[in-house]
Formats: sequence, structure tokens, C-alpha cells
Amino acid sequence: MGSNDELVLSDNPDHPANLIPSLCAKFWTLGWVTGTGGGASIRDEELVYIAPSGVQKELMKPSDLYVLSLPQTLEKHKQATATQGDGPIRPASRVYLRSPPTFKPSQCTPLFLSAFTRKGAKCCIHTHSPYAVLVTLILEQQGQGFDKEFRINNIEQIKGFAKGYPHKEVGNLGYHDTLRIPVIENTAHEEDLTEFMEEAMEKYPDAYAVLVRRHGVYVWGNSVEHAKTQCESLDYLFHLAVEMKKLGVPWVSDIEPTLPRNSLKA
Amino acid sequence: MGSNDELVLSDNPDHPANLIPSLCAKFWTLGWVTGTGGGASIRDEELVYIAPSGVQKELMKPSDLYVLSLPQTLEKHKQATATQGDGPIRPASRVYLRSPPTFKPSQCTPLFLSAFTRKGAKCCIHTHSPYAVLVTLILEQQGQGFDKEFRINNIEQIKGFAKGYPHKEVGNLGYHDTLRIPVIENTAHEEDLTEFMEEAMEKYPDAYAVLVRRHGVYVWGNSVEHAKTQCESLDYLFHLAVEMKKLGVPWVSDIEPTLPRNSLKA
Amino acid sequence: MGSNDELVLSDNPDHPANLIPSLCAKFWTLGWVTGTGGGASIRDEELVYIAPSGVQKELMKPSDLYVLSLPQTLEKHKQATATQGDGPIRPASRVYLRSPPTFKPSQCTPLFLSAFTRKGAKCCIHTHSPYAVLVTLILEQQGQGFDKEFRINNIEQIKGFAKGYPHKEVGNLGYHDTLRIPVIENTAHEEDLTEFMEEAMEKYPDAYAVLVRRHGVYVWGNSVEHAKTQCESLDYLFHLAVEMKKLGVPWVSDIEPTLPRNSLKA
Amino acid sequence: MGSNDELVLSDNPDHPANLIPSLCAKFWTLGWVTGTGGGASIRDEELVYIAPSGVQKELMKPSDLYVLSLPQTLEKHKQATATQGDGPIRPASRVYLRSPPTFKPSQCTPLFLSAFTRKGAKCCIHTHSPYAVLVTLILEQQGQGFDKEFRINNIEQIKGFAKGYPHKEVGNLGYHDTLRIPVIENTAHEEDLTEFMEEAMEKYPDAYAVLVRRHGVYVWGNSVEHAKTQCESLDYLFHLAVEMKKLGVPWVSDIEPTLPRNSLKA
Repeated sequence: MGSNDELVLSDNPDHPANLIPSLCAKFWTLGWVTGTGGGASIRDEELVYIAPSGVQKELMKPSDLYVLSLPQTLEKHKQATATQGDGPIRPASRVYLRSPPTFKPSQCTPLFLSAFTRKGAKCCIHTHSPYAVLVTLILEQQGQGFDKEFRINNIEQIKGFAKGYPHKEVGNLGYHDTLRIPVIENTAHEEDLTEFMEEAMEKYPDAYAVLVRRHGVYVWGNSVEHAKTQCESLDYLFHLAVEMKKLGVPWVSDIEPTLPRNSLKA
Repeated sequence: MGSNDELVLSDNPDHPANLIPSLCAKFWTLGWVTGTGGGASIRDEELVYIAPSGVQKELMKPSDLYVLSLPQTLEKHKQATATQGDGPIRPASRVYLRSPPTFKPSQCTPLFLSAFTRKGAKCCIHTHSPYAVLVTLILEQQGQGFDKEFRINNIEQIKGFAKGYPHKEVGNLGYHDTLRIPVIENTAHEEDLTEFMEEAMEKYPDAYAVLVRRHGVYVWGNSVEHAKTQCESLDYLFHLAVEMKKLGVPWVSDIEPTLPRNSLKA
Repeated sequence: MGSNDELVLSDNPDHPANLIPSLCAKFWTLGWVTGTGGGASIRDEELVYIAPSGVQKELMKPSDLYVLSLPQTLEKHKQATATQGDGPIRPASRVYLRSPPTFKPSQCTPLFLSAFTRKGAKCCIHTHSPYAVLVTLILEQQGQGFDKEFRINNIEQIKGFAKGYPHKEVGNLGYHDTLRIPVIENTAHEEDLTEFMEEAMEKYPDAYAVLVRRHGVYVWGNSVEHAKTQCESLDYLFHLAVEMKKLGVPWVSDIEPTLPRNSLKA
Repeated sequence: MGSNDELVLSDNPDHPANLIPSLCAKFWTLGWVTGTGGGASIRDEELVYIAPSGVQKELMKPSDLYVLSLPQTLEKHKQATATQGDGPIRPASRVYLRSPPTFKPSQCTPLFLSAFTRKGAKCCIHTHSPYAVLVTLILEQQGQGFDKEFRINNIEQIKGFAKGYPHKEVGNLGYHDTLRIPVIENTAHEEDLTEFMEEAMEKYPDAYAVLVRRHGVYVWGNSVEHAKTQCESLDYLFHLAVEMKKLGVPWVSDIEPTLPRNSLKA
């Protein structure tokens, strides 16, 4: 190990340096991060912990992690972008406080940083879930005009999603509400996704996830738990959506609310 | 922890406060309760143990549980409803003996309580199993008149179901019998499902499960084991039913019984 | 525990009383024995160990097992059937050496005993694998004359099967050989399957497995390992067969052998 | 145990004799090596560790392994083949340094040795993954001229593959690049695959994998990690490809690169 290794050494299982490996091992068993694909990052105040590039996600150790200084706090970022324009956080502004000896930084780094600086997220998860990829392929098949947004409604699990962002302040979606996840086109270099993800963040200020066509999904939240459970709920919906497609059931339907009898009588 | 914490502290792995977390962790790996969906509740005499709302089911701890006093025993309930009508148990009648510090009560609470007070159940499980949801979508697709009941016969696993309720007294369904599970429409608020579930319980006095369209399934039993194994058998059948649909095999068929030779000769 | 409990107490993980629970727990995770369905039995010389009826397979303990005295050894059985006809071993002839306090004997018992006495098997496994059931449903759909036998060829995994029974003496099937598994119709009572399974054993003297329509599969072998690995290979082929059906690929094909160049030149 | 048992005894979990069992146990849970199918081999300098034939892959122990002396180093092999022709390494040239007491050598042995001597690989994995088999069946269905190569492009996971072999020197494929995996026909005897695999290695000097029709896949790499993560990425793509086929999405598409705005403006 090298300098600042104390940043990734903790007996607390909830410390970011321990959480990222345990989460990624769990995600590996779900098929989300096989073949070193995908990744996860946690922000703890001004510190950002990131899984490295090319690591076997089910075998990752705390000592494999990068630790960065958050480029700018959310408030500072807002001030900065007001005068400097809305370009993505540039790699140049990254300060690595701790680097693992044998890995390279993840290409997801600027995307994770966007979630932290633009949305004030505490955790951002990126999966290559086959269901996420298949959903973007099904949308692509439907052609222009229908392929830029995944929409589903009238499924109970939708209630697991916040109505907007940050989720604690606005409450959750209702059963009849339509969940909308923007879909962006993939780019040859993952870092180049950043500006398109940020564009989607602006167009969908409530969003806590972006699908990347033929690639996977980015999910963030204002706590590790929120990001992780949203990621699970999304994958559940993507799985359901692929099966619905096979069975000929549309993702969006017009269903009249079932009211309790008391309401009906009233 | 707070007052009455002794209600959830036990070294016995079969204590309800230990069983609910271990069952839910198992259900999480089966994809039944991902993204904090679903839940489980156990009744031990007059005490009711319930998983809280919004908890990560594979990480739940005994200290996360609510403990309620059963609103009224089954007998008292019957007397009460004879004079007061058959409305659902109202939240007002709930007495929380122990609450976890950081969670909110589950919206499933009145549905679990219905299973305990109306059916004398000891355990009630609620899953968001994708197969359960897909079965309700396939039924919906078949249109009015066919969508209010899931029916399947001539599958061996059907013998895992009791002929009626409570199951110890009536024996199990036969191979050629048709398993019938009522399907109720989902409501915007989970608590509002209560009266529709109770209506289904009355219409199907033998039922130990109710499918909720586009939502999942509620399964109860007069022991933890009974509820859990019925829930497994149902999910097995739902899985089979979805695959049968894809392969064009009808769920209900007319098959002549195969008799043993001795019977044939006789 | 009760009398003869020493029959199920051993520190050896390969003792039948330990192997059956560990195998069944593994099978549960594969979805073969959910909801208390399916079962397993091991014969050790004159002793037969059998999982009880209605047990949760992933939670089974050695103390849950029945131990029987083998009704008759294979040789004695052959002598006996030569004079007495080929009827199934009757339950009357079973001698229980050890019974668990809270369970009932498995309805699979006479089927397991048939595998031991007729085929000299050491282990017999019964699963409700959804893939096994789906294969029997697909065959049923193809109609009379095609539905009494599962046939597949030109899949490498077929080489995992013995050419006949007992497998050590005859070698394995070749890649181009056709694996044939008889399919019998299900009966209302599992015990009544016995004579039909025995009939299939006679018609297919090489068989080490029988599919039961709309029910599952029985697999036996002359060692625990043989029965277990055949069961795995069969389930692999059933899975493949279901997917092949969905993709329109026939199970049996006529493929010209690929010879190595040396052979071609020769 | 017997002579040279020290070759398979080590406390280091990364020792080949410990890695092969732990990898194979992991592969078993993925359904790649069920029913004793498939296998794995690691080369450590001049020593080759190979899983035996017919072993239960999730239960394998270090003492079950064969250890061979590498027939010839890559350099010597190249010199030798320059004068002796390009035939496969003959079994005669194998020197077993250590044999397990109860197993037979794997029929995969000459194929693993080819990967080590021809390609200088450090690890070679062979799976019977159902997705790999299904992909070869789908290709076969498309008929002559399309069935000798699996091709897929415009899927992010493709970036997990090296552009050529050995991978460290040439970098990885880009998102828009087409991954090509040669498909060879299966032979009755696994050893006879060797020359066809070597032929594919010559035709595709960049390849690190060969699909075997109706059989599975061989994957190699210049480290254990590389072979294992490529194998995972391939299985991910095979899974996706099977689902794409069901949904009518072509494996190869013509997608215009999405350029970052900066590039567009430039």
C-alpha cells in the first residue's frame, strides 16, 4: 500500500471503503458487474471513493479503491457554473488523495463526479445489467421518437421511486404515475458520456437514473441505501419490461384507479 | 434501541424476531423482495411481528421490527364483526408495543392483520415476485371474465396446497384438482387493498393466497412453515405458468386419470 | 430423538444421513425441490436413508430422516421376481428401523426402493425441476406417438451419460448418440407411479432416469455422485431443450461426424 | 496422496492448485460446469495444473489435480513446428509429474496445452455454458456461410475484450468494433478438437476464445484473471445475444458514432 492508505482502512462495515467492495460483490452475483464491467462510487462529505478500472468486482478489496477530493462542493459548483458555463467537470480538476498500486482510474469517474456535484448525490452505481441493455434495444427497435425515454406505469414497484430529487423532500411516485428514465446514446469513450448525462440531468431534474443505450444504467441517490434500492427496483422493472415485451403486454397502460368502497360510497 | 426491546431479543433462531430477518434475506435472493418491496409478518399468540417499511430485506435485523398487540383475537373479532359490520381493521385499533428507531410502519400492516384476525393465520408473506406480476398481466390480457382468478391443474406441485383453510384439518389438493387463486385489482394506496383482500377471503374461504394485479401476492398459513412453503409452491407454479404461456400450453387441461393396473383390472 | 438414532448420527460428511441434507439444500437453490417437493434417498448396503414427506429441503437435518431395511437385496429380489411375478415392492414389506418424531414417510418411498432393488442403485433423486416439467409438456403438445420419450442428440453434455446401466461397465454415450429418457404419465397418488416406473425400467434396461409428465424426474445411479451428476446433466439438457424449442431448433438432428484430418487423409 | 503431492499443497489461495478448485466452484454456480462438464487449467512457468475428468466441479480439491510438465516452451515449440509441421501436440509428449489417485486425465488436456504452447496462455477455461451452446445453434440455423463465426458489435461490454493477443500489448476493442469468435464443429472425441482449435487459432491470431458447436466454449488469457474475466464477458454477450434473437434485434448493427459536443463543434 502507499500514502494515505488510512483513508481506506476501517473496521466499520459501513465505511465507504468497506461498503463499495461488499456492494460490488453483491452486484456481481446479480449479473450487473461481470467481466469487470460497471462500478460504484460513494461520496463522504468532501471525499469520493471509487472502484478502479478493470477490477474483478466480486473480489475487490478496500485497498483497491481510489480516493479523490470532491472537485467542488455543490454550492461552489453552482457558483462556478453560473459564470463558467455548464461543461462537464474536467479530469484536470480531479485530485487523487489515494491511489491503489496496480490499477487505473475508472472511466466512469467523471460520470460519478457529475452525480455528486450536480445532484448532490452520496452514491452512484453503474451496472451493465443485461435487462437494462435489452430495454434500450427494445426502445431502439421502436424507432425514432420513442427511443429516448423508458416509460412504465401501473406497476406497484414504481412506488419505490421518489417523485423527484432529492427524494426525502418530495415523497414517492404513486402506483398510477409513470416512471420516466431518460436514455442517452452510448459514446465510444465512456468519459464522453458525461456531457450527455448532464444534459439528461438538466432535462429531467427529478431523475435519479440514466439509461445508456447498449451499455447499461447509471443510478444515484442521496444515500448509499437509496442508490442501491433504486438500482434494484429499476432492474426489477427492466426485467419485467423485457418479459412483458415477450408476452405482448404494453409497458404503459391506461388503468382506471380502484377506489376503496368508502371512497366509492362517498 | 428503545422500550420493549426485549420483545425482539432472543437467542432462538426460530423466534419470530429472528425468523423474519432470515426469511426475508432468503426471499431477497429469490427476487421476491428487492428494492425494499414486499414484506413478512409473524403472529405469536397475541403478539404480531412486522418488518418495517423501506428496509433492505436482505440486511434486516431483529431490532428493525415492529411488535404490535393483536387488535383482537379471532373469536373476539368474529363477535365484534357480527355487530359492527365487516369493515377492515382500522389503523386506529393498532397498538404498537415496540417500534424501531428509524423506520416507518409498513403499509402492509392492515393486510397482515386481516390474515391474522380473519383467517387465524400465524404468518403472512407478501412478495413482488416478477412471476406473480406476470401471471396477473397475462390474465388481464385475456380480458374481462377470465382475469379475476388464476387457475391451474394437472401439475404435481398442486398437491403441495391444502384443499382448504386451515390446511391441517382438510388435507391437500389432488393432482387433478384445480388450484384457484383470486386476483384483486391494485389500489393506489396499499392499505386500501385490505377490504378487497377481505372480500376475496370471504368469497374464497379456502384461500391461503391472493394475487394483486400488477403488484404481487399475499400468502398466509397457520404456521410459518406453511406460509413459506405455499409461497414457494405458488412461485414455482407462476414461473411454470409464464413459461407455459410462452410455449402455448394452456394452464387448465382435461386429462383422464392414469389408474394403476390393479385398479384397471379390478 | 428416538430409537436407533445412532443410524443418523455421524461426523463423516459423506455419511448418507449427512449427504441427503447437504444434497437437498443444494437442490433447493437450483429450484428442484422448492415447496417441500421432490426428495432424495441413499442406499448403504442393506440400509436405506430417505428424506421425509413435507420437509423444507434446504433446512433438513439428519434427524429428520427415515432409515429402512432394504426389503430384499438385488439378488434375492431377482430370485423372488422369477417366481412371484414383477409387481412393485409393496409397502407391507418395508421395515422402518428409524423414524423421525414429526414427519410422515415420503410418498416417493416405493419408487426409491424400486431403483434400489430392481436396478441395484445406490442413490435415487426426485426433482420437480420446472425444466423437466416443461419438457414433458412440450412432448405432450406434439401429440400421441411422440410424447412417451424425450430424445436429444448431438449435444456434448450427452457424453456425461452412461451408455447403459450400471454405467461403470458399459462406458458412456457418444456425442452423436441419442439420449432417450422414457416419459410416464402422472398418477393421482405418487405411490401408484411405481408400477409404471418399473415398466419403463424393463422397457429401457439402460435407463437411469424416468420423466413423469407434469410432475418431474426420477434419476438413479450406482453411486451418489453418479445419480447427482446425471441429474445435473439432465437438467442442463432439459433447460437447453426448452430454449431450443423457443428458438425453433429441433432436439434431434442428423449431423455428419466431423473427423480429424488424420482420419480424413487416411 | 502419492508422489509429488507437494506440487498441489500450498497455503496461498492464489496458488494454481487452490485457484482451480475455487474458480470451478464459482463456475458451477454460474451453470458453466454442471454434471462434471467443462474444466480449467493454469500454467505456472513450466508446470501445468489441470482439473481431472469426471470430477464434481463445485467439490473439487487441490489433491484432485493433475500436474504436467509443459511439453515445450513457446519458443521451443515455434522452432520445433518450423521444421516438424503444425500438427497438434501429441499426448505422447505429455509428462505427468503428479496424478490424483482416483481420476482420469481430462480429455480437454491437449486443448489446454495448445493454448499454453501456441498462444503462450497462462490459463484456459472450458465451459458448457447453455448460452454458448445456444449461440452456436442459432448460427447453425442461419445456415452455411454465416455459421462459422459469432459476431456482435455496438455493445459496451465488447470493450472488455482485447483487440488482439496477447492483450496487454494491443489495447482493447472499441465500442463500435465487432467482436469475432470463431466457431468450430464438434468432434466425437474431445481430443480431436485440438487440430480444429489450432486451425482457428491460426486463422484468428487475435482470438482468445473458440466456440465449439453444440458443446461450449474455450477461453484463454495471459493471466488467470484475464481468462476468467473474458469468459464472464463472453457469457454475458452470449446471454444477451440469445435474448436479442428472441426479441428480433440483430447482433450486428450499423450505428453512427455519437461524438461529444466539443468534437462536433470542432
